[in-house]
Amino acid sequence: MKSFIEYSATTDFPIENLPYGVFTSPKNAQRHIGVAIGEWILDLNTISHLFTGALLKDKQHVFKEEKLNAFMGLTKPHWIEARNTIQKLLDANNTKLKNDNELRQKAFIKQSDATMHMPAEIGDYTDFYSSIHHATNVGIMFRSKENALMPNWKYLPVGYHGRSSSIVISGTSITRPMGQTLPVEGADPHFGPCRLMDFELEMACFIGGPPTALGERITAKQAEDRIFGFVLMNDWSARDIQKWEYIPLGPFTAKNLGTSISPWIVTVEALRPYIVDNYPQDPIPFPYLQHDDKFNFDIKLEVDLKSEKSSVMTTICRSNYRFLYWTAKQQLAQQTITGCNLRPGDLLGSGTISGDTSDSYGSMLELSWKGTKPLRLQNGEERKFLQDGDTVILRGYCVNELGVRIGFGKCEGKLLPALPYKE
Amino acid sequence: MKSFIEYSATTDFPIENLPYGVFTSPKNAQRHIGVAIGEWILDLNTISHLFTGALLKDKQHVFKEEKLNAFMGLTKPHWIEARNTIQKLLDANNTKLKNDNELRQKAFIKQSDATMHMPAEIGDYTDFYSSIHHATNVGIMFRSKENALMPNWKYLPVGYHGRSSSIVISGTSITRPMGQTLPVEGADPHFGPCRLMDFELEMACFIGGPPTALGERITAKQAEDRIFGFVLMNDWSARDIQKWEYIPLGPFTAKNLGTSISPWIVTVEALRPYIVDNYPQDPIPFPYLQHDDKFNFDIKLEVDLKSEKSSVMTTICRSNYRFLYWTAKQQLAQQTITGCNLRPGDLLGSGTISGDTSDSYGSMLELSWKGTKPLRLQNGEERKFLQDGDTVILRGYCVNELGVRIGFGKCEGKLLPALPYKE
Ligand SMILES: [Ca+2]
Ligand SMILES: [Ca+2]
Ligand SMILES: [Mg+2]
Ligand SMILES: [Mg+2]
Ligand code: NI
Repeated sequence: MKSFIEYSATTDFPIENLPYGVFTSPKNAQRHIGVAIGEWILDLNTISHLFTGALLKDKQHVFKEEKLNAFMGLTKPHWIEARNTIQKLLDANNTKLKNDNELRQKAFIKQSDATMHMPAEIGDYTDFYSSIHHATNVGIMFRSKENALMPNWKYLPVGYHGRSSSIVISGTSITRPMGQTLPVEGADPHFGPCRLMDFELEMACFIGGPPTALGERITAKQAEDRIFGFVLMNDWSARDIQKWEYIPLGPFTAKNLGTSISPWIVTVEALRPYIVDNYPQDPIPFPYLQHDDKFNFDIKLEVDLKSEKSSVMTTICRSNYRFLYWTAKQQLAQQTITGCNLRPGDLLGSGTISGDTSDSYGSMLELSWKGTKPLRLQNGEERKFLQDGDTVILRGYCVNELGVRIGFGKCEGKLLPALPYKE
Repeated sequence: MKSFIEYSATTDFPIENLPYGVFTSPKNAQRHIGVAIGEWILDLNTISHLFTGALLKDKQHVFKEEKLNAFMGLTKPHWIEARNTIQKLLDANNTKLKNDNELRQKAFIKQSDATMHMPAEIGDYTDFYSSIHHATNVGIMFRSKENALMPNWKYLPVGYHGRSSSIVISGTSITRPMGQTLPVEGADPHFGPCRLMDFELEMACFIGGPPTALGERITAKQAEDRIFGFVLMNDWSARDIQKWEYIPLGPFTAKNLGTSISPWIVTVEALRPYIVDNYPQDPIPFPYLQHDDKFNFDIKLEVDLKSEKSSVMTTICRSNYRFLYWTAKQQLAQQTITGCNLRPGDLLGSGTISGDTSDSYGSMLELSWKGTKPLRLQNGEERKFLQDGDTVILRGYCVNELGVRIGFGKCEGKLLPALPYKE
């Protein structure tokens, strides 16, 4: 496949990708839905009249919205028709858009000129805990090697409800939080800036399809039509605050200080060539969590850290989405098993994605093994946890045997110093 | 104060109350904002032009919305002006509305003819755990008398993020969920219908004021302008599912099967005559959790249970909002201490409100002491937990020394049998 839009062989956004996002441009403050192609954005608002397929010809209005929820709320056949239409319009052999100079002028915006926004309104956000290496590492650190995994962990995808309001788009700075911690076990808690500030390398999927009714279940086998696409996610975490607050009801203020996502939603259709075997599961899960098809993806993930004192990035983690024990279909089945209703735009976070080697751990907590093994950055600095001024960048991409590469762009955020407490 | 609208002395909705809700009527399927007065609803959409006060004259559009978020998103002075305007319009000595027969015909709808809807779009919902008696009871049952309260409990209002999508309006039936449980400790988990289905007697406050920015804190002292009003809440809970799933990240599918709220939001201004001393706190909390004023309320709470086999209600619990250890201001301060941003319409649940006597416990778990002390209903049946067909009704009201009574109406829901599992 070749597009009339030129791009480098290493672009994240070839014609095989076509991820969706929401942007504004210097010329237009209204949010438009767009698709990334090379270094450009194809503005779907401007070309909504070109969606003339059987399913979308009466639904062109979804491309005029300021967020993707209405498009996500259609069905998988609609998403596939949209993808086919866009791929055809961008094809080097198709003259429709290629030769319409006036429309081309309006329909393509340089990514470097655009500002990206939240792609959808997220009604509810869940954070899962589905990497067996991450859960095991945390278990060893806070309990023991023998009791590393909790008894429920291999029976169900453990997860918890997160805060929707504090999900922000890549590029948004995060402020070091203040809160309560317990520096000395058994002594009184302290109040002050978080001292163990961390990132979490995650991916998250956006839920699509029409809203479901309260009481309705979606089994893992039925989940296929419900997963719209994936983004990178950094679930910033205040480890010392979390440790003090989370018993018995789970993480709360340690996690609602900001959660960053990458702006381009890579669809399941685009990821299909990179499907790999699911992680082997033992014991075999209950039927509602079983699906026969593969729904795991070979997505290479990297975390870069940059100190404010340096312009040099250090890659501190190389992991892969495929390390996840539970699939997104299983997560969705767990989400709805007791009848929880879904809305298009809901977000399911994967949980921190750690591999099985110490350079593939998806958090500072694991990389520095609770602060006992400081990391050395390229510029000579050391890190146990994040310091003020640190920038964290997550990246993800796939390459198949044919050398076709698609990517997720980046999920970037800078940690700002704590704001002084005032009454 | 006397209204030209007549109502009984025991109404929940005298002119001193004026709670806000959203309704439709047989004549109009569009959702309107209204205020309850006696057995009537005053339709604010129809009389929005009468909000001619200094603050609201340019904001009348908020009363034309289909939900209360825009009105909530104004400021406390706006809310007070609205209340004063409505109280004046309903006053027996004011002829403006009273003598305008045409407008009166349009502006008043019988509550018995109306259908109530969710009063606001709830962006995020938090469930706190702020009753010391409830937390102690649960602690004794699941740990021991000595370690009943967790070490953090008296230092911060423990809470967790809940599921917004599954919050429903009073009258919505709830389906007994299926899920995983661990009937025998150490054995394999089972999949099937929840066997320990419970209610939780809670109240919840709606957050108002303009959205805050990520990173911004609201201290307890600053929280006054942020709390719009209160509703009754039944946080339906699947105890056996919760017990198996909640370690280490907190309640998840045991709580997202449905959470019911009462339709009328009673404002803080209406509750002011019923303010009582805050619950004594020892140790003194950190400054961000301190406020000097009283923000506790004498709200009498009742839970009625009705079996499907009988038309007789049994009052199984009499509790009081004042038993809460942490105030709503302190809950809000905790919610935002690490910089979590607020949106008008956010909901903070109080946690189960149990008193210090065994007839004031706010859940079946406590009332039946983990199933060891069955309750006897008026019709002779026994209950340890909820059975299919049971209807649970929460009620709340305040009476002051002058005999002025305001109420919350009711929060009602019926438990339907589990839906058979199918692939
Ligand atoms: Ca996480
Ligand atoms: Ca609760
Ligand atoms: Mg977050
Ligand atoms: Mg709920
Ligand atoms: Ni939420």
